[in-house]
Amino acid sequence: MPDPDQRLAISAADIRDAASRLAGIAARTPLLESDALSKAVGGRILVKAESLQPVGSFKLRGAYNLISRLTPAEKTRGVVAFSSGNHAQAVAAVAATYGAPAVIAMPSDAPAAKIEGTRSRGAEVVLYDRLCEDREAIGRKLATERGATLVPPFDHPHIIAGQGTVGLEIAEQLRERRLTADAVVVPCSGGGLVAGVATALAVESPRTKVFAVEPEGFDDTARSLAAGARVGNAPGATSICDALLVATPGALTFAINRQLLAGAVAVNDVAVKRAMRAAFDSFRLVVEPGGAAALAAVLEGKIDVRDRTTVVVLSGGNVDPALFADVLAGRLKNVGH
Amino acid sequence: MPDPDQRLAISAADIRDAASRLAGIAARTPLLESDALSKAVGGRILVKAESLQPVGSFKLRGAYNLISRLTPAEKTRGVVAFSSGNHAQAVAAVAATYGAPAVIAMPSDAPAAKIEGTRSRGAEVVLYDRLCEDREAIGRKLATERGATLVPPFDHPHIIAGQGTVGLEIAEQLRERRLTADAVVVPCSGGGLVAGVATALAVESPRTKVFAVEPEGFDDTARSLAAGARVGNAPGATSICDALLVATPGALTFAINRQLLAGAVAVNDVAVKRAMRAAFDSFRLVVEPGGAAALAAVLEGKIDVRDRTTVVVLSGGNVDPALFADVLAGRLKNVGH
Repeated sequence: MPDPDQRLAISAADIRDAASRLAGIAARTPLLESDALSKAVGGRILVKAESLQPVGSFKLRGAYNLISRLTPAEKTRGVVAFSSGNHAQAVAAVAATYGAPAVIAMPSDAPAAKIEGTRSRGAEVVLYDRLCEDREAIGRKLATERGATLVPPFDHPHIIAGQGTVGLEIAEQLRERRLTADAVVVPCSGGGLVAGVATALAVESPRTKVFAVEPEGFDDTARSLAAGARVGNAPGATSICDALLVATPGALTFAINRQLLAGAVAVNDVAVKRAMRAAFDSFRLVVEPGGAAALAAVLEGKIDVRDRTTVVVLSGGNVDPALFADVLAGRLKNVGH
Repeated sequence: MPDPDQRLAISAADIRDAASRLAGIAARTPLLESDALSKAVGGRILVKAESLQPVGSFKLRGAYNLISRLTPAEKTRGVVAFSSGNHAQAVAAVAATYGAPAVIAMPSDAPAAKIEGTRSRGAEVVLYDRLCEDREAIGRKLATERGATLVPPFDHPHIIAGQGTVGLEIAEQLRERRLTADAVVVPCSGGGLVAGVATALAVESPRTKVFAVEPEGFDDTARSLAAGARVGNAPGATSICDALLVATPGALTFAINRQLLAGAVAVNDVAVKRAMRAAFDSFRLVVEPGGAAALAAVLEGKIDVRDRTTVVVLSGGNVDPALFADVLAGRLKNVGH
């Protein structure tokens, strides 16, 4: 049993504070609907299109909420991050607005679009081998060497609070339409986004259930929830969801998620590609594999949406054009699972 | 010289009235920015993403503004339209919300996605040969036979006023950001959208210049502006911009456009495909060929945006996946021009 008295890393007030800070920086992304899609699944579906953020994912929110609070001297010394690509681009973009140097450790198999998007925003990129090297150790070493501040991808209160503004906006946008969501479904890697969203909604819309969705083989949050403690993934799994390949849940994020989530489910690559195609057909949105995971869970029936109102977070859209073209061509069975 | 006293089909008040009617029906589509794109062209670019409307284009606005005003008896008798596909889907969707029968004449070479999108919304589709048959005559005949109301694609005051809400929103969204646009650039077929936008901005932001963009070979508005009277296109031209293949400007739309537009330019298919790719890379948006025409003009340098603030309307996103995959694969020289 989770301890209800356990002190969590952030509160809803931290998320409102982050929202004030982010005004005019992060886009208030739209909540979009498609009658055809809702009809197909037998329930009302709204998608929160975080792929439309200026950096192509929700990661701008947390990165800005942390980096903007650094002192002028800290900004001058710069920032370091490790990231599969979306946090990388967000940290690079925010650092650039302050003229702060940024060094980002990225896996050598990250999508070319993400590596290029990080470099083009002025960051120095250090590639590492995702399967053999410890990205956290690389990040800490770089930070020490450069005297720079490490901006972690999820397990930090300012990061979680920043990502939580997605949940705050969902609650506001639903109220504007006089709707209440029965469920909000969120792609999950280290768990920062879903933890922030769940924290916001626990106050803003307490009856709304929040679900995490992970790739099959990277369902560490689901298994940790089942075990009641953080457990890691077995080695050797593969997934096209490059943004969701974290080994274990964060300590801070899991403490929140074990208290607030209604559940977690996993999806395979074929389901993810179908969801990317559905986002193209129904919303004219470009969504990356990891960004489409929550939609995949809904379309596969892994979250029951029938006769309910469900918000699906499309968390990012940074996908290499060749992969997106493959998805459009219907080549669903090329990859794994 | 245009006659300044000539009475125009609509006023800014008609657009505000349409906006009230459309509240909760049409999406207030976002105005998106990309630092990389702005840097590349040397000026600040914002895009108005009408591809994110529920029917995939701005056409929902005009169709709803007209059809919602029909009497109950008229709605029962139904509506008729002729359209290359975006107006078709919009009319079908609006008619369906009223339970009104809809018959739509569409060219047999319209994109499969548009024909399917019209049928799936419950409309009866009548195909015609775009090169040999007169779509207006077909529409009038169908309307007479069925006792239905013809919903014209552009040359009607309610249609122009509905589309003009795009301009009203642009003005509001710029004010929220304390910006003024030097120019707004709009894809143009019959001229309803650009006429509505220009009417709104003439009141809301009188120093903003409004430009129309047409496909090469279908630059009837540009040549009509030059001639001071409506002229048609020479036969035989082709363009991938299926949404922008009208033969001559509308009477009502041209009367507005000759008074209010700063100019009109034309773009070829290669430029349009490059713009579709740019919308993918910079905004994670799926934009159809005609919807990307204004962005193409900006990227080609046909509208001077250097050191200025320019809003580009991305008017629609209903594109067949195979064509979009081709564009992503960089096959820019397959088609014409």
